[in-house]
Amino acid sequence: MAAMAEPNPFTEAKRRAHVEAAFAVDEVRLANRNAGILLEALRHDVTPVGLHYLLNHFDVPYVADDRWQLALHGHVLRPMSLSLADLKARPARTLRVTMECAGNGRGLLTPRYPSMPWLHEAVGTAEWTGTALKGVLELAQLDDAVTEIAFIGADRGFDRGVEHSFGRSLKRELALSDDVLLAWAMNGEPLPPQHGYPLRLIVPGWYGMGNVKWLSRIEALAQPYQGFQQAVGYRYRPAPGLPGTPVTHMRVKALLVPPGIPDWYSRHRLLDAGPTEVFGRAWSGGGVPIVRVEVGINGRWQQASLDPPHSKFAWQAWRYLWQAQAGEYALACRATDANGESQPLEPRWDSGGFGNNAVQGVRVWVR
Amino acid sequence: MAAMAEPNPFTEAKRRAHVEAAFAVDEVRLANRNAGILLEALRHDVTPVGLHYLLNHFDVPYVADDRWQLALHGHVLRPMSLSLADLKARPARTLRVTMECAGNGRGLLTPRYPSMPWLHEAVGTAEWTGTALKGVLELAQLDDAVTEIAFIGADRGFDRGVEHSFGRSLKRELALSDDVLLAWAMNGEPLPPQHGYPLRLIVPGWYGMGNVKWLSRIEALAQPYQGFQQAVGYRYRPAPGLPGTPVTHMRVKALLVPPGIPDWYSRHRLLDAGPTEVFGRAWSGGGVPIVRVEVGINGRWQQASLDPPHSKFAWQAWRYLWQAQAGEYALACRATDANGESQPLEPRWDSGGFGNNAVQGVRVWVR
Repeated sequence: MAAMAEPNPFTEAKRRAHVEAAFAVDEVRLANRNAGILLEALRHDVTPVGLHYLLNHFDVPYVADDRWQLALHGHVLRPMSLSLADLKARPARTLRVTMECAGNGRGLLTPRYPSMPWLHEAVGTAEWTGTALKGVLELAQLDDAVTEIAFIGADRGFDRGVEHSFGRSLKRELALSDDVLLAWAMNGEPLPPQHGYPLRLIVPGWYGMGNVKWLSRIEALAQPYQGFQQAVGYRYRPAPGLPGTPVTHMRVKALLVPPGIPDWYSRHRLLDAGPTEVFGRAWSGGGVPIVRVEVGINGRWQQASLDPPHSKFAWQAWRYLWQAQAGEYALACRATDANGESQPLEPRWDSGGFGNNAVQGVRVWVR
Repeated sequence: MAAMAEPNPFTEAKRRAHVEAAFAVDEVRLANRNAGILLEALRHDVTPVGLHYLLNHFDVPYVADDRWQLALHGHVLRPMSLSLADLKARPARTLRVTMECAGNGRGLLTPRYPSMPWLHEAVGTAEWTGTALKGVLELAQLDDAVTEIAFIGADRGFDRGVEHSFGRSLKRELALSDDVLLAWAMNGEPLPPQHGYPLRLIVPGWYGMGNVKWLSRIEALAQPYQGFQQAVGYRYRPAPGLPGTPVTHMRVKALLVPPGIPDWYSRHRLLDAGPTEVFGRAWSGGGVPIVRVEVGINGRWQQASLDPPHSKFAWQAWRYLWQAQAGEYALACRATDANGESQPLEPRWDSGGFGNNAVQGVRVWVR
């Protein structure tokens, strides 16, 4: 082991002085329970299961295989109950999908809503295998009156005093589009318990909350779904108490793999001078491709080279060759999508802490 | 969805009042990065990979398969370099091992050392497959002068201003015991990157820090190993700055699966009155079996029934049938091992936040 030449940015005194914000023990309990991607794992095109971000509202419900059935009812001509075998007998598709939690970045807002205090790490890309929701809905024959389809999971609990099962809805048109899946496999294996075994909904391009896990019930509705997570939970609100607008697609974002080696506690970086490939991933929502990624070095923005998309809903790789010279740096990255949407330098505040796609900052010392 | 009859313990006002301690953003960053077991996943005899606790000091080092070699050198007659194929050609063994982070419970101490703020969740049980370290050391032929064997990983970074690769040592006698493994598989699959691919050390019965990941070098030493994580990092200290004593075996502990359904934010529980099986796991260190688990209900302790151990180093299941009646409860559990060691009701303070095996408390409302 070797102590660093002074001035050393990673000493214990600096560590103790690093308190930038005070978090509650309840937030820490959620942070210990839910898991973010390790930023260095952004190098995987497809995130290994245990490295994919994980956010579960309630407990993982353990449903015995032989008891589980998917109920499909409401305003349909043929209500039905489907086993996992029934679903697997249908045509299967695999989609590579980048998924981000709508609350990613919440912990960087001030003040912030008391919930999971994500900073940057609530993202991952997986290959989901399942059958098209559309085909199953066609089998059940939707009433003309149907405007929304609700998806209800087997997980149950309280949020803000209200008991409910986790549920979300999609508008009829989206539910009948080609890319929404009833998925039973992740990266070629049966869904792990924590990712929704035996079945989850996959809504490519949306934030994670739309991808209902442990799916147990689909209901065709002739009026807007009033489930808590739809009507109350996942809404953008400029101030508490307002009705707000629904959280839907992911906003454009890029993340970089912090270069060099870390300080354990602060995650600040030390790097040797010389050519360094700064690389990472960028994505947007709704299948909109990324057209530009820039790397910021102490506020000066340089264009990175961008790989073409692997597929419509998966993140894109990018890289930038940095000639790193001794000194102290703030690195950042910023993506722009084909709609011209880009990332703000400072977080846009939201009452529930949703949709924060401000640029990531990484502190680096080059020696 | 249904609002709960008043008095409702899970309202938003209560949520905002729940701030019990202030944590730093650096602690939250570590908590988002490192992952605890979901307490409901204690039901698995063997923890699925993505649910096993994870604590990595530095970044996961990505080493290309064909470049990786294990160096074995120092005070040996035959220094050598071994490929993964060389190791896999040796006799293989699989051990079921419960592993806990030495810092589990750190976040419950006041004041606490600025590091990963675990509460209760840094534990898991896996089946590790590898070859006995002993056989490989015998191949290399240790000098008589050898007193310790050091194990150094490929991960590198800073802690308290000191740059080092993560490394730990074992006394000669322990290194030559039968149960220490050089492991290449976890639950029957190649090690995932975050659990040490391609090779890690497994020291059954010890806290996690001894189980060095991404193992790249073994050094036979004729004097005590001075690596940072051995000489400075993992030591019990009654006050900062003292030399302290090494952290070694896991201390006795039990955890329960919180019954009923959770409040998302506080993880407090709601349960319907009636017979409820309260169940969980208990373990100790060094292969010492558990002889008793008690369940505490509002401070009154009842004996739980205890399953026999599956094997020497794996946790034991226990259960208690609780006749839950309407009211508000504090549940707890407490294990005692064959050495007569039991768990304290209140944390024993430690300067680095190690070895906190105080009883877990779970708040439950029965309706």
